[in-house]
Amino acid sequence: MTDVVVIGTGITKFGELWDKSFRELITEAAIKAIADSGLGGTDIEAIYGGCMASGRFIGQEHIGALIADYLGVNPIPSTRCEAACASGGVALRQGFLAIKSGENDIVAVGGVEKMTEVSTEEAGFALGGAGDQETELFHGATFPSLYALLARCHMHEFGTTEEQMAMVAVKNHANAMHNPNAQFQREISVEKVMNSGYVAEPLKLLDCSPLSDGAAAVILCSKEKARELGLKGVEILASEQASDTLALADRKSLLELNATKIAAQKAYAKAGVKASDIDVVEVHDCFTIAEILAIEDLGFFKKGEGGKAVEQGKTKLGGKLPVNTSGGLKAAGHPVGATGIKQAIEAVEQIRGNCGGRQVKGAKIALTHNVGGSGATAVVSIFKGLIK
Amino acid sequence: MTDVVVIGTGITKFGELWDKSFRELITEAAIKAIADSGLGGTDIEAIYGGCMASGRFIGQEHIGALIADYLGVNPIPSTRCEAACASGGVALRQGFLAIKSGENDIVAVGGVEKMTEVSTEEAGFALGGAGDQETELFHGATFPSLYALLARCHMHEFGTTEEQMAMVAVKNHANAMHNPNAQFQREISVEKVMNSGYVAEPLKLLDCSPLSDGAAAVILCSKEKARELGLKGVEILASEQASDTLALADRKSLLELNATKIAAQKAYAKAGVKASDIDVVEVHDCFTIAEILAIEDLGFFKKGEGGKAVEQGKTKLGGKLPVNTSGGLKAAGHPVGATGIKQAIEAVEQIRGNCGGRQVKGAKIALTHNVGGSGATAVVSIFKGLIK
Repeated sequence: MTDVVVIGTGITKFGELWDKSFRELITEAAIKAIADSGLGGTDIEAIYGGCMASGRFIGQEHIGALIADYLGVNPIPSTRCEAACASGGVALRQGFLAIKSGENDIVAVGGVEKMTEVSTEEAGFALGGAGDQETELFHGATFPSLYALLARCHMHEFGTTEEQMAMVAVKNHANAMHNPNAQFQREISVEKVMNSGYVAEPLKLLDCSPLSDGAAAVILCSKEKARELGLKGVEILASEQASDTLALADRKSLLELNATKIAAQKAYAKAGVKASDIDVVEVHDCFTIAEILAIEDLGFFKKGEGGKAVEQGKTKLGGKLPVNTSGGLKAAGHPVGATGIKQAIEAVEQIRGNCGGRQVKGAKIALTHNVGGSGATAVVSIFKGLIK
Repeated sequence: MTDVVVIGTGITKFGELWDKSFRELITEAAIKAIADSGLGGTDIEAIYGGCMASGRFIGQEHIGALIADYLGVNPIPSTRCEAACASGGVALRQGFLAIKSGENDIVAVGGVEKMTEVSTEEAGFALGGAGDQETELFHGATFPSLYALLARCHMHEFGTTEEQMAMVAVKNHANAMHNPNAQFQREISVEKVMNSGYVAEPLKLLDCSPLSDGAAAVILCSKEKARELGLKGVEILASEQASDTLALADRKSLLELNATKIAAQKAYAKAGVKASDIDVVEVHDCFTIAEILAIEDLGFFKKGEGGKAVEQGKTKLGGKLPVNTSGGLKAAGHPVGATGIKQAIEAVEQIRGNCGGRQVKGAKIALTHNVGGSGATAVVSIFKGLIK
């Protein structure tokens, strides 16, 4: 099987982008990625697009064909992948497999969501489709309330505090100050988070990632083809995916996301690296408690010690393991289909050394962690570069 | 690269299934397919699921995780693919590529749609997401009206008649008489079609495929693994996909679906067979004109002669090339995400010789043709069996 490298990245600003349509966003990101790769549009052999709920958000399905059409690259195959908030991560993995299969040498992978054209109520219902509508959302549960249950369990079992969760948000906002594409480029304080009002106790407004518009794209290439074309690339050592029950009530434990653990174990094994080898990581912090769960379930800190690790500054820039240097979902924004691709871009740009004020010095191995719903899908990918 | 075979098939009844939920349907089809393969659920390594618009139809996304959950096969990866009415065909191709990539040996591929829990108006809007909402559907065009434009062009250029289109429906209803899972098991006449009232002139009610609930699943396996396990399988020689513009107005010609032509050419080349080698074919007859376009664009009849071929009985059971022995979308039903998988099942069962009254004697090579929207996606797969 051939190896796969990322040879180009492109991303739009994330935020409430009233003046840009869904198709403008994904086209902007894809054109930037193609330009960054040094190739032309006609070199692309296939497209994978991650998008969660375009049917609900903009009344449009058939997103694969739409992307190929607006990029002007017909008639190449173009396929949408959906796994709720892990749609981008899943699309990345399908692009990775398409090259591994020998079917393609050069594949574009994009992720996009346009969430701000509907009311907050409609957006909440659309996002509810990531959980179990029949047993959770139809009965009044919301996503903040599902993650609030996870937070309560963690607090009860391990003594994790609301302040420690707030520190996740504070750190991610601080990181986003150095990311020009982030939705929120402003610092916040623990006090501000603590006073921001409960959405679902113990989670407050500033514990939650926002509704966002945005798109991101990467160009993948087989290592042989990249060498033949004289292109630099960051290698994807592994991209692994796992599933769990859709409903929280069916889980064996609410102290961990089992899909994250399984995907991570498989990814470490495939990549031949250990958690301690990772230099920088982007995790799925849809809520602050999710980042604490992630850094434990990915093996960076012992179960129950995530909150303390955050408090001790171990996940800050300059700490033992910088987490969410992009600002994460919390501060960089969370256009759901785009998030998994944005994480991959942050991994690649850290390894390329292009991250300016948020650069992790000497970053060589990066990990991304993308979650769907309350953990029913998880995708973990490991990047190592730079091949020439 | 390894070869891929189908080792099991499972399908539900198609129709207005008021007593079965989305998750019951896909689980029923998948369990039947696993049982048919002779394997157990724990042998499945990954799942691909085709589904178009579950967000609009049942308020649920995250369909990959849902399928794995209700099948009880966590934590394996499970991914939803969407390409409008070609979602099933695209999922089949992703399962095929997953095995080709060496990533998996045994993969379950399913397709499902539950369309009758919303009003006909809401269903029409959901299906409109297959076309270009911004330039077509929001302005009042419906899917029957888009295909009516294609019918008008074909009639004007080639003299195709409304009676010839009616004969497609009559043939497919006659075939469905022999398919116990078909939605409409009743014969109709050309006169009945002609009198059935215009939906979008020249297309009448009985030129249109129905709204349906249903699910279908197949188990794919690498040829080596199937031999090792002593399982019989029908080989997938090729599965190719192509794209076209989302909007009809952007096409160079309305006399053909270019994505069908490109996907077919690539599939024939990969499979090493010619159109004349195909013994039986399932095409995407969402409207009767679509079947006429398909049998031309797939190379079975010269451009413009599809209507005449139907009139001459060449596509009937016992004719030169039996088309849509299952009853097609028209009479077997069209739960959109399931259709591409149902077509694959018909191909496999024809080659296995299991089709009873609709069996094509000595069928060895079968082709399936699945279209998204008005032709922006097409998937063509070629099956040949029976390996032991």
